[in-house]
Amino acid sequence: MVGLVIVSHSNKIAEGVVDLAKQVAPANEGIRAAGGLEDGEIGTDPTRIMAAIEEADSGDGVVLLCDLGSAIMSAETAIELLEDSGINIRIADAPLVEGAIMAAVQASMGSSMDEIIKAAEETRQMPKVN
Amino acid sequence: MVGLVIVSHSNKIAEGVVDLAKQVAPANEGIRAAGGLEDGEIGTDPTRIMAAIEEADSGDGVVLLCDLGSAIMSAETAIELLEDSGINIRIADAPLVEGAIMAAVQASMGSSMDEIIKAAEETRQMPKVN
Repeated sequence: MVGLVIVSHSNKIAEGVVDLAKQVAPANEGIRAAGGLEDGEIGTDPTRIMAAIEEADSGDGVVLLCDLGSAIMSAETAIELLEDSGINIRIADAPLVEGAIMAAVQASMGSSMDEIIKAAEETRQMPKVN
Repeated sequence: MVGLVIVSHSNKIAEGVVDLAKQVAPANEGIRAAGGLEDGEIGTDPTRIMAAIEEADSGDGVVLLCDLGSAIMSAETAIELLEDSGINIRIADAPLVEGAIMAAVQASMGSSMDEIIKAAEETRQMPKVN
């Protein structure tokens, strides 16, 4: 199963997204939170993201979902740090919460990395209000 | 200043979005969390949303940001419950975290409800990855 890492400036957001994803896709055991700084403050930390990626990977690669632009920068640093790990890591260009829920459902169905990223990114276009 | 309410199935997500918005837009004091159920479980509760709207309103109306479809339903129920309150309440059809941060910045600049909703909804189209 493809792993997922939720990268947010807020630890509460990252943990909350994992909680919600586990409710929507209970079969998904490869989703990890990487939110905030070590001391709980707002920010993103490449080392925390790196550790979450290593935990989320079960051999099928890991998709990252990020909240804001600077989270992407930290995610890219984490990917560089894992360059020699052999883990296939990609960033979905998707809304954090909406993309993560869709990705968690897709991953629990055994979808490929490409399918998961496509589904997560398509949530950009999904209306919420009828 | 237009108020904001963050409606999420997860209390952690809603509180985390408020924390992050306050960091990005410190002047914004009209943002409130309405996440999860009374007992902390995953879900949305029209009564909690209603209370948050009343707290967020300072006379200029309140914009709601919601995570998933059923959050919108609870938000609509809360709006019905407040029908006689005279509070101008609208739902932004925007990604939760990204839309909320943009809305918080706009609201703290004194933007109108229309401007805030437009800016929040435009985050759907904003690429994160270069």
